[in-house]
Amino acid sequence: MCELLGMDCNVPTDIVFSFSGLALRGGLKGPHADGWGLALYEKGAARVFLEPAAAAHSPLAKYVRENPIKTLLAIAHVRKGTRGKVALRNTHPFVRELWGRHFVFAHNGTVRGVRRHALGRFHPIGETDSEHAFCVLLSRLDEKFAEYPGERMWKAVARIASQIGAGGTFNFLLGDGTHLYARCATKLHYIIRKAPFARATLSDEDVCVDFAQVTTPRDRVAVIATQPLTRDEVWTAGVPGEMWVFKNGSLRATLPSPLAEKRA
Amino acid sequence: MCELLGMDCNVPTDIVFSFSGLALRGGLKGPHADGWGLALYEKGAARVFLEPAAAAHSPLAKYVRENPIKTLLAIAHVRKGTRGKVALRNTHPFVRELWGRHFVFAHNGTVRGVRRHALGRFHPIGETDSEHAFCVLLSRLDEKFAEYPGERMWKAVARIASQIGAGGTFNFLLGDGTHLYARCATKLHYIIRKAPFARATLSDEDVCVDFAQVTTPRDRVAVIATQPLTRDEVWTAGVPGEMWVFKNGSLRATLPSPLAEKRA
Repeated sequence: MCELLGMDCNVPTDIVFSFSGLALRGGLKGPHADGWGLALYEKGAARVFLEPAAAAHSPLAKYVRENPIKTLLAIAHVRKGTRGKVALRNTHPFVRELWGRHFVFAHNGTVRGVRRHALGRFHPIGETDSEHAFCVLLSRLDEKFAEYPGERMWKAVARIASQIGAGGTFNFLLGDGTHLYARCATKLHYIIRKAPFARATLSDEDVCVDFAQVTTPRDRVAVIATQPLTRDEVWTAGVPGEMWVFKNGSLRATLPSPLAEKRA
Repeated sequence: MCELLGMDCNVPTDIVFSFSGLALRGGLKGPHADGWGLALYEKGAARVFLEPAAAAHSPLAKYVRENPIKTLLAIAHVRKGTRGKVALRNTHPFVRELWGRHFVFAHNGTVRGVRRHALGRFHPIGETDSEHAFCVLLSRLDEKFAEYPGERMWKAVARIASQIGAGGTFNFLLGDGTHLYARCATKLHYIIRKAPFARATLSDEDVCVDFAQVTTPRDRVAVIATQPLTRDEVWTAGVPGEMWVFKNGSLRATLPSPLAEKRA
């Protein structure tokens, strides 16, 4: 199993505090020692740091913590490989261009039957079920929409995700440059930090930040993680099958599982 | 104008010596202060370091020099922007997935008429003529071949490149995970380092390496650069319109300009 971390904001924010919490779970406090990755958007383009080795001991992860890059949208992942070798090509997050935007994807869980879903124009480079699932998702979106469809994409993502997720555990984070889509299959949490800001302490370490000191009253920062990263804040747990859509630090939609709808 | 650097080897090699020479030209010894990028392959997947700022003063470029990553195939670029803002989305090298491989592309020059060439399934994220040209090139390859065509791709790349290059200056480096394609429009040089290895000194700095100390007799390393990077080695200059194909540190083919062929 792996751990996911996403951040979506209305003002450029650095992800160092949360990433430090995640990186600790990458080989030091957790069993996720098979790689880590961090994607940071600047408008429609993402810059990605990837390393097929434990984040906790990684000089590159240390560099990222010491040289924070502010962004509106970030996705990070620490990996305990269950499918596919420990290699760069199997390291999340994965990136593809569609409609002139970078799409970024990280997955937690295993989708065993994913190769039953036909690929379209996107093909995996590595051997993970995760990258295959991402390529299926983008292929279906590409077939359905000729250009970036805005909010009409939300339901489509939820529907395709529940089809793929029927074959296994499909917790994921997906970024399209302006939105962060977060699907809970088994375990996912979010928190929105906004005024009045308070202190927060990392669950796995005695590191704390007083967000009131580093923010303005208008700031909104949504953080999404497999497990709550702090011990003194209230996180909201996801319902299995549900997908959240975040934009500018706000939860814009909660989409129930389309398969559950069908059964109801 | 920008500067290109490529490396293609038969054993994993770090690019630090050459990259140091290039980085010096990124804002310190040269006017190329608008960004830099370095792509390093591990099999079919590329890891990319990008920064829309001068390489000479970049902490990330320093990190890359101090934490060398060995690779068989690398492409680097320092940018003096002529088209498009200084931004991540306009920073070379550009990356796309085709046929389950990462393709990596960096360009030197300006191709003014490039938007006359229709795009296919690949779309630019930024505003440069370079990324547009890359998307045209990959779109045409995608239309021509259903899967990775191996050596049949060489002529196709040369032909499409000369069509695009008819509208301007189209020096480029293109990687497909196993080959490095290097096209000379106006200025490009290469050297192949092999046994017996000698000493080499960077043109812009008193840094020298005795390659005999850091290689085995079987090593072959091809280095391609806009300008020769060393002052005590013999580099081969490209003929305008010509494209070289490197694999495993060897020059596998020199393709003359298909347009010149037509005129002959």
